[in-house]
Amino acid sequence: MNQVGRSIPRVEARAKVTGRAEYIHHFTLPHMLYGKVLRSTVAHGRIKTIDTAAAKAHSGVHSVVTASDIMKIVPHPYYGPAFHDQPILAVDKVFHVGQAVAVVLAEDPHVADAAVQLIEVEYEELPAVFDEVEAAKNEIVVHDELKPAGTFTDLKHLVGRKNTNIALDFQLKRGDPDGAFAAANRVFEHTFRFPTQLAVSFEPFVTVGEPRADGLTLHTASQMPSFVRLEIARLLGWPENKVRIRVPLLGGGFGAKTYIKLEALVAVLALIAKRPVKIAATMEEQFYIINNHPATFRIKSAVSDSGRVIARECEVWWNGGAFADIGPRVSQKSGFTASGPYDIEHVKIDSYEIYTNLPPTGAVRGFGIPQLVWAYESHTDIIARDMGIDPVEFRRMNILREGRPHATGTDMRDAAIDKVLDTIADEMNWKIPLARGEGKTRRGRGIGIGIKASISPTASVAIVNISADGSITLSMSTVDMGQGSDTIMSQAAADVLDVDPGVVKIVHPDTDVTPFDVGTLGSRSTFHMGHAVRLAAIDAKKKLEALAEEAGLPKGTNYPPSEIFKKRYGMQAGNVIGTATYMPTYVPPDKETGMSSDVTPNWMIGGAGVDLEVDTETGHIRIHKLINVVDCGTPINPEIVRTQISGAAIMGLGSALSEDVHTDGGQITNASLADYKIMGIHDIPAMKNIAVDAVQKNGPFGAKGVGESAIFAVAPAIANAIDDAIGVRLTHLPITPEAVLRALRIKENRPIEDDE
Amino acid sequence: MNQVGRSIPRVEARAKVTGRAEYIHHFTLPHMLYGKVLRSTVAHGRIKTIDTAAAKAHSGVHSVVTASDIMKIVPHPYYGPAFHDQPILAVDKVFHVGQAVAVVLAEDPHVADAAVQLIEVEYEELPAVFDEVEAAKNEIVVHDELKPAGTFTDLKHLVGRKNTNIALDFQLKRGDPDGAFAAANRVFEHTFRFPTQLAVSFEPFVTVGEPRADGLTLHTASQMPSFVRLEIARLLGWPENKVRIRVPLLGGGFGAKTYIKLEALVAVLALIAKRPVKIAATMEEQFYIINNHPATFRIKSAVSDSGRVIARECEVWWNGGAFADIGPRVSQKSGFTASGPYDIEHVKIDSYEIYTNLPPTGAVRGFGIPQLVWAYESHTDIIARDMGIDPVEFRRMNILREGRPHATGTDMRDAAIDKVLDTIADEMNWKIPLARGEGKTRRGRGIGIGIKASISPTASVAIVNISADGSITLSMSTVDMGQGSDTIMSQAAADVLDVDPGVVKIVHPDTDVTPFDVGTLGSRSTFHMGHAVRLAAIDAKKKLEALAEEAGLPKGTNYPPSEIFKKRYGMQAGNVIGTATYMPTYVPPDKETGMSSDVTPNWMIGGAGVDLEVDTETGHIRIHKLINVVDCGTPINPEIVRTQISGAAIMGLGSALSEDVHTDGGQITNASLADYKIMGIHDIPAMKNIAVDAVQKNGPFGAKGVGESAIFAVAPAIANAIDDAIGVRLTHLPITPEAVLRALRIKENRPIEDDE
Repeated sequence: MNQVGRSIPRVEARAKVTGRAEYIHHFTLPHMLYGKVLRSTVAHGRIKTIDTAAAKAHSGVHSVVTASDIMKIVPHPYYGPAFHDQPILAVDKVFHVGQAVAVVLAEDPHVADAAVQLIEVEYEELPAVFDEVEAAKNEIVVHDELKPAGTFTDLKHLVGRKNTNIALDFQLKRGDPDGAFAAANRVFEHTFRFPTQLAVSFEPFVTVGEPRADGLTLHTASQMPSFVRLEIARLLGWPENKVRIRVPLLGGGFGAKTYIKLEALVAVLALIAKRPVKIAATMEEQFYIINNHPATFRIKSAVSDSGRVIARECEVWWNGGAFADIGPRVSQKSGFTASGPYDIEHVKIDSYEIYTNLPPTGAVRGFGIPQLVWAYESHTDIIARDMGIDPVEFRRMNILREGRPHATGTDMRDAAIDKVLDTIADEMNWKIPLARGEGKTRRGRGIGIGIKASISPTASVAIVNISADGSITLSMSTVDMGQGSDTIMSQAAADVLDVDPGVVKIVHPDTDVTPFDVGTLGSRSTFHMGHAVRLAAIDAKKKLEALAEEAGLPKGTNYPPSEIFKKRYGMQAGNVIGTATYMPTYVPPDKETGMSSDVTPNWMIGGAGVDLEVDTETGHIRIHKLINVVDCGTPINPEIVRTQISGAAIMGLGSALSEDVHTDGGQITNASLADYKIMGIHDIPAMKNIAVDAVQKNGPFGAKGVGESAIFAVAPAIANAIDDAIGVRLTHLPITPEAVLRALRIKENRPIEDDE
Repeated sequence: MNQVGRSIPRVEARAKVTGRAEYIHHFTLPHMLYGKVLRSTVAHGRIKTIDTAAAKAHSGVHSVVTASDIMKIVPHPYYGPAFHDQPILAVDKVFHVGQAVAVVLAEDPHVADAAVQLIEVEYEELPAVFDEVEAAKNEIVVHDELKPAGTFTDLKHLVGRKNTNIALDFQLKRGDPDGAFAAANRVFEHTFRFPTQLAVSFEPFVTVGEPRADGLTLHTASQMPSFVRLEIARLLGWPENKVRIRVPLLGGGFGAKTYIKLEALVAVLALIAKRPVKIAATMEEQFYIINNHPATFRIKSAVSDSGRVIARECEVWWNGGAFADIGPRVSQKSGFTASGPYDIEHVKIDSYEIYTNLPPTGAVRGFGIPQLVWAYESHTDIIARDMGIDPVEFRRMNILREGRPHATGTDMRDAAIDKVLDTIADEMNWKIPLARGEGKTRRGRGIGIGIKASISPTASVAIVNISADGSITLSMSTVDMGQGSDTIMSQAAADVLDVDPGVVKIVHPDTDVTPFDVGTLGSRSTFHMGHAVRLAAIDAKKKLEALAEEAGLPKGTNYPPSEIFKKRYGMQAGNVIGTATYMPTYVPPDKETGMSSDVTPNWMIGGAGVDLEVDTETGHIRIHKLINVVDCGTPINPEIVRTQISGAAIMGLGSALSEDVHTDGGQITNASLADYKIMGIHDIPAMKNIAVDAVQKNGPFGAKGVGESAIFAVAPAIANAIDDAIGVRLTHLPITPEAVLRALRIKENRPIEDDE
């Protein structure tokens, strides 16, 4: 019986609903100290003095740690996946409000909280820059010199570059865009902006460091145990196997819990204190640790009279904040899909990662794609409307079809862009004209569609261990952060071994014993780890068959494992260990042209259709229907796929309608969930979540990832529907009632007064 | 450079001397309860009532648990490796003083200690039997019916046997012993006794049970994590993978920490309380949990006039105490070597495992061999002396030589009995007559030699994981209990992979992730796990070579692993996992005749030579020189081999000279280390510890085990030396000054009065 394709309940559900699921926030160790971080109050400044005397004198304080203490253990205390630019604690300078400057350690977390207020820091403020387009002019420079990390060899050419905020300029050129634009009759150009947004995990960042006889263990809420191990080992100058990273379940990750967040700080604090140390960030602190990239996107298209997009020019400025984190990869990996899911002969892309004095930005669900789709799907809609072509028809004319080359030169395979588009149109009854309504409320509909490439080339390793009674243990470093990977992987192993998924026990990431995986991110787990688990299970199956042969059991007969073990070892004893590494083939984009013949193992496709009404008196919108359609190949667990589509779409809604980190001179003015509005249960409209019938031929069991696809196009579909309803075009997110009203008044030539 | 054969320092030494080594006695969990056991005060009785009211009412007590509570979770709460005869807590009856009857759980261990005194148990006492020879008459029967466990299929014929204390009668017959004895001129017969002794671990038994979302974890000081997992899973009716056993370093094991000790009780308590539970036995409690087998050995030999042993008859009564534990295996596995390392044509062995009302006895260093060697090497010496043949010469005439069949019919291979004997003689300057001394002090010397077969057939599995920087993690379920296995296995893996053993990190037993191993016992680890680690390292090496090929590196070149990984994965990523299972070939002894063509993968040989003086006025002896010689094949770490020889010999000395658990009507009267005397540093004589130059051809790197060999022959060598010095023969251990004096007075016909 196939275990793949069934909507079995999540394997971790019982532990969660009974309160027995393990999270690091619950985790304590004997003799543990709690750390509280003092954060910078200025956006750019030189630290003149740090006076820790009062904090140290506070009753119950164990110690106060600053960069000078850290540098006794880590002489060069800078980390980062792309650039080694982020200090564990501020060294001499601060680069953004909220940067970690000092830490109080105490046995009681409330004591640490109180004492941290007693630290006095004197800053000499420096000029700061916050806007990405402004910063790209390099008039105010954040860092004196670029420090690429060397992990990504394609950044080597940036080593030592001075006086620039441009951390990376990804360029792609295909065909002759300049010529095409010069020859074009119809050229459209628009600029869109995407604001700073937070990846709201209900479990904030939390890490416990534990000095051990044989090294250091970090118990941490991370999506990347294997990377954390590597980076901490590098910082400490230790071999990998002296650093152990344990990750239980996460209360959400959404990309924010990638790379190093609290781990470097906690690691060093534990080594300094020679005791276990825990730091648990507050909800407020999350806003200062990592955010989504704000971005400005100038997009220009040349279109034929018949409505074919001939050429497209994209210029994207990504606001990376004060430290690069994985930003350069966002600007590159997303950058090359900036021209969208369209078959365009002449393409030019410039995608800039820009340093500013905002808190750092990095990976958040979608990894830059929502920023791009917001722009290119708004732009596409404007063109279609302007040319009087139905937006669905316009897209049908221009989308990339099977076998056609993407802008990078990679031929599209198993990318059901057409099917996703058709399904949205069908579900929207697109052919039937919409009753627009009368009076103050106007109805409209809009669609959007986006694509994303997978993160590549990355390896995943799995171990499938069959015990003597036939029960199975699966060891892997994939993190279940709510997306259901434990369940999916149980199904994958069970399918190969022809057992019930319930007999598969998952060993959660523990880098001493669960093998390497680059990380749980970029919707890569189902594809990459799914393959590794499948192959490891096949390896185990083969070894079990060999054991049966050793035991003298006739070949081809299907003995239960318990009988094979008993026969071979004379008692219930032994086990069989299957292992496998999976890495897809990949051809990295050429550094000069951005071209690649095989840029991704698969394409994720996600689209949305929105039917809404706008209250023209208040600017409020009410969504009647939100259709979310993806191509995720063949779902391994259809119900989990539906919840992933739903979750991503809801996050997309928040991003479209309300989420906006407000800053004022680098200060965040709404750093709390009271002021920063995410979608609540009453904000969620009627939704339909659909995975089209598709097969990812090179995927495990025909599957590919689905964690992000449904977030891509919600915002432009809404903006397009608003335009359809009331004929105004919004180019900035979020689409608040105020923004709608303001746009409407501008259109009607009666702007809102600021004091209205 | 070879890593095998080098005396590198122990890999865990630094953790131990800095106090950072992990032991379960230190281990605590949040919300943990401490359990204190109420133990039976009678040796055999029916439980009429258990009044727990006062204990329950004691302030701070969480609960009081008796068998009836346990049976709600485990309806048939009996465990044991050979027989399912031992209840988790006494059900209706008690069978020995110290049997666990009830448990108090409290958050404070001192509260539990105090409250346990308040439990009132009323017993109806039943007749009890303590002596093994007496018990074999079956006049008083301990258990109504035998309950073989079924794990050992060769015990099946005992199922349901009633009214007997004989748990197992191992019989071996070779040639025509009856005919040979009838025809013999010279027949010698003696009976020897070996007392109850304790395996003194400085870390007493300790277990922490932790209910988890996905099952139950036991953190326990056990030599057998894989067995504990199986047995707890069986008791609970769970699959193996729901039970996780974690074992850090042990503070000694010596065989006592095998099978189930506190684990079943703690497992069930944790499930009842739904909280973590810890029970740490006191030193006193160790005496009631498991002891070494007391034994009575009647040995009879027919000897030719020239001094060849023609026939031998052995009858061994093993006092198994009230529960079988592994006793039946002791009587069988040791039983078949009861005729010693001698080439004897006609052999008859009866080896009886007997139930009595003493605390249970089981595996202790040597697994029955010291009891046998005590008898057969005393007996051998008596014969030689009686016949006027030099004891070394007598043995030379009779020992088993390479290729000759052992009593079981197995041909001896790689058993350097002759070399061990010659080395002892050389080291003792045996050819030079000893100056006997005059006056009250007399000098003598003696030797002894013994053999032991390995525990078979048993499997060991290992995982060798190479990280992207070349550092190595070795996962295995071998327990380092002070014998140095972590170091040995690091050397084995390092040798194959051509790295420094320091780069190998050992993952201590954790049955979720470290693979199956039958247990750390019977000196089996170096041979069995040594092979598994070697083979797993070879597997990893091959996979690394394949990775190099995938990466396009030229074949045959010796790239460092870090370069191979970086080349293959484009960054520091991935790992390589080698695995292997090792199980030696083995032919179990025939149930009827006890014969086997291949009874053991290797033979362990150990001998001792003693040069001592006896004070004829006080009975005190002073050992001038103790020579310990073993064949352990080729040592992997010569220094660790020497410390193993030394440690075993010191334990043998204690066993010979002072260790004796005194009982009176089943009550132990010296259950403390103040009254039960083990060797202290000032008791240890000048020793020389030698491993003869040898190769175990089928062993890993030519090695075999050495944990027990040097314990075998210390006692008979001392007794033989005393006979040599003062002409008295001691047949009971320990050889206390009182025993010597009493024997001397008897010889001189002036017995000591009891009130002297």
